[in-house]
Amino acid sequence: MSERVVLAYSGGLDTSVGIGWLKDATGKEVVALAVDVGQGGEDMEDIRQRALDCGAVEAVVVDAKNEFAEDYLMPALKANAMYQKTYPLVSALSRPVIARHLARIAKELGADSVAHGCTGKGNDQVRFEAAVAALAPDLTSIAPVRDLALTRDKAIIYAEQNNLPIRQSAASPYSIDKNVWGRAVETGFLEDPWNAPIEDLYEYTMDPSVLKPADEVVITFTAGIPTAINGKAVTPLEAVEQLNILAGKHGVGRIDVVEDRLVGIKSREVYEAPAATALIAAHEALESLTLERDVNRYKRGVEAEWSNLVYDGLWFSGLKRSLDVFIDDTQKYVSGDIRLKLQGGRAVVTGQKSDQSLYDFSLATYDTGDTFDQSLSKGFIEIWSLPSKISARRDLGA
Amino acid sequence: MSERVVLAYSGGLDTSVGIGWLKDATGKEVVALAVDVGQGGEDMEDIRQRALDCGAVEAVVVDAKNEFAEDYLMPALKANAMYQKTYPLVSALSRPVIARHLARIAKELGADSVAHGCTGKGNDQVRFEAAVAALAPDLTSIAPVRDLALTRDKAIIYAEQNNLPIRQSAASPYSIDKNVWGRAVETGFLEDPWNAPIEDLYEYTMDPSVLKPADEVVITFTAGIPTAINGKAVTPLEAVEQLNILAGKHGVGRIDVVEDRLVGIKSREVYEAPAATALIAAHEALESLTLERDVNRYKRGVEAEWSNLVYDGLWFSGLKRSLDVFIDDTQKYVSGDIRLKLQGGRAVVTGQKSDQSLYDFSLATYDTGDTFDQSLSKGFIEIWSLPSKISARRDLGA
Amino acid sequence: MSERVVLAYSGGLDTSVGIGWLKDATGKEVVALAVDVGQGGEDMEDIRQRALDCGAVEAVVVDAKNEFAEDYLMPALKANAMYQKTYPLVSALSRPVIARHLARIAKELGADSVAHGCTGKGNDQVRFEAAVAALAPDLTSIAPVRDLALTRDKAIIYAEQNNLPIRQSAASPYSIDKNVWGRAVETGFLEDPWNAPIEDLYEYTMDPSVLKPADEVVITFTAGIPTAINGKAVTPLEAVEQLNILAGKHGVGRIDVVEDRLVGIKSREVYEAPAATALIAAHEALESLTLERDVNRYKRGVEAEWSNLVYDGLWFSGLKRSLDVFIDDTQKYVSGDIRLKLQGGRAVVTGQKSDQSLYDFSLATYDTGDTFDQSLSKGFIEIWSLPSKISARRDLGA
Amino acid sequence: MSERVVLAYSGGLDTSVGIGWLKDATGKEVVALAVDVGQGGEDMEDIRQRALDCGAVEAVVVDAKNEFAEDYLMPALKANAMYQKTYPLVSALSRPVIARHLARIAKELGADSVAHGCTGKGNDQVRFEAAVAALAPDLTSIAPVRDLALTRDKAIIYAEQNNLPIRQSAASPYSIDKNVWGRAVETGFLEDPWNAPIEDLYEYTMDPSVLKPADEVVITFTAGIPTAINGKAVTPLEAVEQLNILAGKHGVGRIDVVEDRLVGIKSREVYEAPAATALIAAHEALESLTLERDVNRYKRGVEAEWSNLVYDGLWFSGLKRSLDVFIDDTQKYVSGDIRLKLQGGRAVVTGQKSDQSLYDFSLATYDTGDTFDQSLSKGFIEIWSLPSKISARRDLGA
Repeated sequence: MSERVVLAYSGGLDTSVGIGWLKDATGKEVVALAVDVGQGGEDMEDIRQRALDCGAVEAVVVDAKNEFAEDYLMPALKANAMYQKTYPLVSALSRPVIARHLARIAKELGADSVAHGCTGKGNDQVRFEAAVAALAPDLTSIAPVRDLALTRDKAIIYAEQNNLPIRQSAASPYSIDKNVWGRAVETGFLEDPWNAPIEDLYEYTMDPSVLKPADEVVITFTAGIPTAINGKAVTPLEAVEQLNILAGKHGVGRIDVVEDRLVGIKSREVYEAPAATALIAAHEALESLTLERDVNRYKRGVEAEWSNLVYDGLWFSGLKRSLDVFIDDTQKYVSGDIRLKLQGGRAVVTGQKSDQSLYDFSLATYDTGDTFDQSLSKGFIEIWSLPSKISARRDLGA
Repeated sequence: MSERVVLAYSGGLDTSVGIGWLKDATGKEVVALAVDVGQGGEDMEDIRQRALDCGAVEAVVVDAKNEFAEDYLMPALKANAMYQKTYPLVSALSRPVIARHLARIAKELGADSVAHGCTGKGNDQVRFEAAVAALAPDLTSIAPVRDLALTRDKAIIYAEQNNLPIRQSAASPYSIDKNVWGRAVETGFLEDPWNAPIEDLYEYTMDPSVLKPADEVVITFTAGIPTAINGKAVTPLEAVEQLNILAGKHGVGRIDVVEDRLVGIKSREVYEAPAATALIAAHEALESLTLERDVNRYKRGVEAEWSNLVYDGLWFSGLKRSLDVFIDDTQKYVSGDIRLKLQGGRAVVTGQKSDQSLYDFSLATYDTGDTFDQSLSKGFIEIWSLPSKISARRDLGA
Repeated sequence: MSERVVLAYSGGLDTSVGIGWLKDATGKEVVALAVDVGQGGEDMEDIRQRALDCGAVEAVVVDAKNEFAEDYLMPALKANAMYQKTYPLVSALSRPVIARHLARIAKELGADSVAHGCTGKGNDQVRFEAAVAALAPDLTSIAPVRDLALTRDKAIIYAEQNNLPIRQSAASPYSIDKNVWGRAVETGFLEDPWNAPIEDLYEYTMDPSVLKPADEVVITFTAGIPTAINGKAVTPLEAVEQLNILAGKHGVGRIDVVEDRLVGIKSREVYEAPAATALIAAHEALESLTLERDVNRYKRGVEAEWSNLVYDGLWFSGLKRSLDVFIDDTQKYVSGDIRLKLQGGRAVVTGQKSDQSLYDFSLATYDTGDTFDQSLSKGFIEIWSLPSKISARRDLGA
Repeated sequence: MSERVVLAYSGGLDTSVGIGWLKDATGKEVVALAVDVGQGGEDMEDIRQRALDCGAVEAVVVDAKNEFAEDYLMPALKANAMYQKTYPLVSALSRPVIARHLARIAKELGADSVAHGCTGKGNDQVRFEAAVAALAPDLTSIAPVRDLALTRDKAIIYAEQNNLPIRQSAASPYSIDKNVWGRAVETGFLEDPWNAPIEDLYEYTMDPSVLKPADEVVITFTAGIPTAINGKAVTPLEAVEQLNILAGKHGVGRIDVVEDRLVGIKSREVYEAPAATALIAAHEALESLTLERDVNRYKRGVEAEWSNLVYDGLWFSGLKRSLDVFIDDTQKYVSGDIRLKLQGGRAVVTGQKSDQSLYDFSLATYDTGDTFDQSLSKGFIEIWSLPSKISARRDLGA
C-alpha cells in the first residue's frame, strides 16, 4: 500500500488542487476530510464527491457541529474568550476540532501524514500542526501552499490543465473563514487600517445602522452553559445558531481589529460573531452576580491566558487543560437568567437573576431592611490603609 | 485657636448639616472645602456661601478640573481602566483628587482632621480615608454619617430646626455622584438587578434607541493622551468635555453592572460615561497598532491590577505609582489618529493610522509586495510545538 | 440549656484562663476543643482534663494529624507554598483544620459561637474567623484576648485567684506555635531585625554549623505526593515526620524573615520547618522534570496566589478551591524519584528520575544519538525576533 | 571593499576555525570581536592576536566588565532574577552585552552581518540573534556551527590542515561558559539527571562539605544596588568580584537544575554563581524590610516575567524595558544594610537594617510601647470575611 496523507478539505480551489499537487509532490495517496463546523454553504456530500473527482482515494465527511459547540465553544464561553479583548477566536477554535479528526482519520486509514491548505504567514498553520503534534506526535504535517509552493496562480492553471471540477467563484475579492461561532473576512482594501469596513463584507449580521424594533431575549445558563432561550431548552449548538439569527438581525458582533499574530506580525482583521458576542456579554454579567470578587478578579487573568494559548495554537497543551479545570470549577454556581436587549448593533444586559446570586439585597440596600453593620468599616479602613500610612511616614520623613 | 476639621463639602443636605453636626459632636471648627471636578450643577460661589451660612468658619472653593483631567483621568485612559471590564472608575478617580486638596487645606489652615459625607458601606469612605492616610498620615478622618450617626432623617430635622439654607430638592429618588468623567446613579428600584434601567436615570447621554445620523470624529493621541479632536488641538479637559457632548448625543457609554465592592458586598450600579467610553475604545485601538504583542498582552494584566487598586482606594500607594511608570513607558509610541463612528449607543473605531505603527503592510499583505518569508514558519512551528509533542509522547505512552 | 461557645484550647495559660473569662463575660458555657496537629509536647488527655479542671462543661480532643497531613499539607506541597518565597505557611495551614473542627463541634454540641486565643494584631485571628465564617456563617467568633481584654498580666492574676492548674512554665521568653509542618518562634530580642537568631530558639533542627556526615534520602512521589522514602512506603504524615527527623538532624529548614502581615504591619519571624523545606525542594525538582515549560511558568504565579490566599486566611474561599483543582490537574504526571543530600543546613537535589519525565536524552544530548534538527532553529529565531525587529525599525526611525 | 562579518570571538576552537570557515563559505572578510565580561582565563591581547593569526582582517577587544556589571547584572539583581526560581541567568545576561558590541562594531566597521559560535539547539543562538535584530534590524546573523555545518570534528581537522594556532586543550570533557556573574558547565555524564555532579565540575566555588569557619559580611545597598561591603565603598563590578571570592570560598551558589529551554526541550544544567546567589538573598531580604506588601507581592510576578523574557533572549524588547522602569521605581527606598553569614554552601541573612525600613517596632512589638489598636481588627476581619460568608450561605443553601 502506498503511503497516505489526510488533507483537510474545504471544497475550494486551493485544497482541490492540493489533492493532485500533494500526490505529485510526495507520491502519497490523498484522503480528503471535510469537517462540518457549521460553515454553511455547500452541501457536504457535494464537497465529498468533488474530492473524489479531484483524485482523492477516499473522501470523508464528518458532522462535527455538536462536538464543536459542546467541546470547543462552550469552554470558550466559560472563559469569556476574547483575544485582545475583542476577538472571540472564531478560526482559532475550529482548527483543533478539525485537527482532531485529521489525526483520528489518519490513524484509522493508516496515513503517516496530514495536510492543510494554510499559507505560511498566518496563525492557522500553527494551530493545525501544533494540534496534530499534540494528538499524534508521529504524524508529519504538510502545507502544500507553504511547503510545496502551491500559489493561487499555479492552482488556477493546474485546475484548468487537469480539468478539475472547481466552482470558480468569479473572482470573489474576499478570503473567508467561517463556522457557527463566527466569520472572518480578509481582502485587499482592508489591509490599510485607515479604510473603514464596508457593508458588503458581512453575511452573519445585518446593518446595525438600520434600526429595527428592539428584541428581548432571556438566556438561561446552567453551570456556565446556555440551556434555554426564552424558556425553551436548547443544546449548545442550538443556542449558538438561534443567537446568530437573533443577534445577527440587529447587527450585533461586528469586530474590526489590528491583531497580533503568533508569527510576529500585525494584521488587520474583520470578523462578525453575533452569537459569541451576545453569549459572552450575558455570561460575564451572570458571573458578576454569582462569582466571588476574588474569583472574578483572578479569572480575568486566566481568561487572558486561555485566550492567548488558544490563539497561539496550544489548544491541546497541558497548560490549557489545567486552565480548563480551573475555569470549570468556577462555573459551578454560574446558573441563572440574563435578559438581553438586542438593537442597533448592541446586546445590552437589562436584567439578571439567579438562585445562586451572591447579591444580597439586605446588605446592599440603603432602604429599610439594611443589615450591613457600618461601624465595622472604620476598623477595616484603618487596617486597609495601614501599609500606605506607614510608608507615607517613611516617604515624608515624618 | 480651636481644633479644626476640613470637610469635603458638596453643597447638599448631608454635608451642609454635617457642618453643624461635626461641630456639635467634636467641638472642632469646620472648614468647608468644595472641589470642582466638573460635576456641573450649581455655581461654586453659591456653594461656598452656603457653607458659611451653615456655620463653616471658612469655606474654600478649588477649581480642580484641569488637574483632575491631567493627573487622574489621563492615567486612567492610559491604563484603559475598566473595573470588572466595564466601569471606568468615575467616582473612584475623583476621591483622591478631592482628598489631596483636603489634606493640603488641612495643613495650610492648621486642621488636625478631615471629614467626608460618605456612608459606612460604600467604597468612597475607603478612598477618601486611604488617600488621606497616604498623604498626611497624622490627620484623622471623620465620617459624620457613619461615625456620628447622622442619618438622612436626622439631617432633615436638623436642617429645619437650625433653619439651614438647604435647597431641599423635592425628594429626588436618585443618589447621584458625578464629575467630568461620568455619572453614577443609585435608586431603590435598581436594587433588584432584574429591573431594567429607565430613561429618566440619564443626564449625560441621550436615548441610544432614538437613532440620529452618525457622527465621525478623529481623535489624535500623542503618547497616549488625546491632543486634538478633528484636527483641532485640545487639552485633556477639553477632549473629555467635547467627547461627553459628541458621544453623549448618541447615547454612548451607559453602563449597568453588578459590582464587587471593596467592603465585601455586591451592589447594582448604573453609570454613564460617554467620553470615557469613547476615549478608551480609541486608545485601545491605537495601542493595538503601536504596541508590541508582548507589551499588549502583559499590559492587560497591569491594567486590571491598576483598576483594582484605584477602585480599592489605593491611588496613592506605592504599587499604583510603580504601575504608572510601567504604563507611562509603554505610551511612548502611542501616537496617531483614530477615527470613531458615533451612533446608536456605539463608538466604533473605523480607521487607525500612526507614524509609530508597527503594522507593516509589506509583511501583512497577501498581494504583490509581500516580504514575509513563509519558509521560516516550518521551523518556527516545529519548535513551537515541541513541548506539546514531547509531552504527547509521554502521555500516550508512545 | 445555656448558650455555648467552643474554644480552641491549647492547654496553655491564655486559653485555660479563657475558659473562665469567656464564661464570666458572656454567660455562655464553654466547651474546650484541643486539636492534635502534631504539635507534640503534652499528652492530649492531660490537656483535656485540664480544660475540665478550668471549668469547661465539656472537653474534646481530636487527633487531626493524618487529616492535617493529607488535606492541608499535601495541597501546600503541590503548591510549593512559600509565602514571600520563604515561609512554608506553618501556622497558616493549621488554623483552617482547627477551625473546621471548631465549627463541626459547635454544630454537634449546639453552640452558637466559637472562640480562640489569638491577639488582635496577628494573622491567626483572621484565619480562624474567616475559616469559621466560610464553614458556618451563622456562628459568632469571640477572641477573649482581643475582644474581652484578657491580657497576659490579667491572665496570671486570674489563674492564681482561681487556683487554676496551669503549668506555669517559669517565664519562657518565647511565644511558640508548632505543628508537624514546622515551628514558629517569637521573642523580644528578635523584634530588632538586626539581631541574629540564637541557637536556643530551635527545637526541630540541630545546629547546621556542626557538620555531620551527609545523609542521602530518596523520596518517591506519586502524583505530587510523597509515597515512599528510601523505597519504603509512607503515608503523607509519615513522610513529614520522618523528614523532620532526617532533615532536622542536619539543620535544614531554618527561616528568618521580615514578614508582611495581613493586618498591614511588618513583623520579624523565625521558623523552622525541616520536612517542609526538604519536600518542597524535592517536589520542585520533580516538577522541573515532568511538567511542560508553560505549565511550570504559569504555575509559579498560581503558587504565589495560593500562598497569599492561605496566608491571608482564605483557605475555604472559592478562589482557593479553584486554584486547587488547577494545581491537582498539573500533578497528574509528577511522579518519580528525587535523591536529596542532607548536610550542613542544606537539602540538595542530586538526582532525579521519572517514568513521566519530559527530559528527552536524544533531544538534549550533544553526543551521538542527537535527534534535534538544528536547521529548524533559524526559522524559529527569525519569527521569534520579528516583533523586536519590526519595533526596532520603528524606534530607530529606519 | 569586500562584505564584512563581525564574529563574536572567544579564542577557542570553534570560533577560531569559524574565522576561516565563514570566509570560505560566505566570501566575507571576518572581523573578530572579543568581549571581556569577566570570564577570566587567557589574556585578552593573546586572544586578539590569535584571531589575526587565524585570518581575521581585524580583531577588536572590548573590556565590558563594568558595563556588564552596571547595565546588565544590576537590573538582574533588582529583579531578583532567577529563572525557574533557581538559575541567575548567567549566560542569558552576557549575550545581550556581547550582541550590543557586535552590532556597534558592525556599524562602525561597515559590516553587513554578525556571527556567533552557538549551536542550533541552545538558548544562546536566540539571545544573540534576537538582540542583534532589536539593535540593528538590517544586520544578518550567521551561525557557522548551525548554518554552515561546522561540527567539532570538522573544526579539529580544519585547524590541523590550516595549522591554526589553537590551544588544543587536551580534550577537556567540559563545555563551559563563564562570566563574572557565574559559570555554566555541561558534560556528557550530567546528561543523565540521576547522576550527581562531581567536585571536579566547579571552579568558582570550593567544596561546601568541607566546613570552614563562618564569615560575616555586611552589604550596603543604595536604591537596590550594592554600594559598600563591610563599610567599604564598591562599584557594582567590585561587589560582584569580592562576593565571588567570599561566597565562593564557602561553596555558596551551586545550582543543578533540569531547565526548560526556549527551543522546547529540557536540559540538565549545572551552574555556580556565588556572588549572584549571595547578592540576591541579601537584596530580597532588604526588599522585605523596605517595600510595601502589595509591591512585594506584585513584584514577584514581574520578576518571573522579567526572568522569562531575559532567558528567552528578549533583553532589548519593549516589554523588558517597561518592566525595568517598574522595577527601578520600586527600588527607590531599597537602601540599607544586610548582614550575611557565609558557611557550608549557605549565605544566610542574619541581620537587616535600613533608614527606609517599613518595619515599625511600635506596631510590631508585643511588649511595652505597642501602639497597634487591636480593636480595629474585629471590623477588618468581618469585612474581610464577608465574601466568604455570603458565598457560604449560598453554597450551604442556608
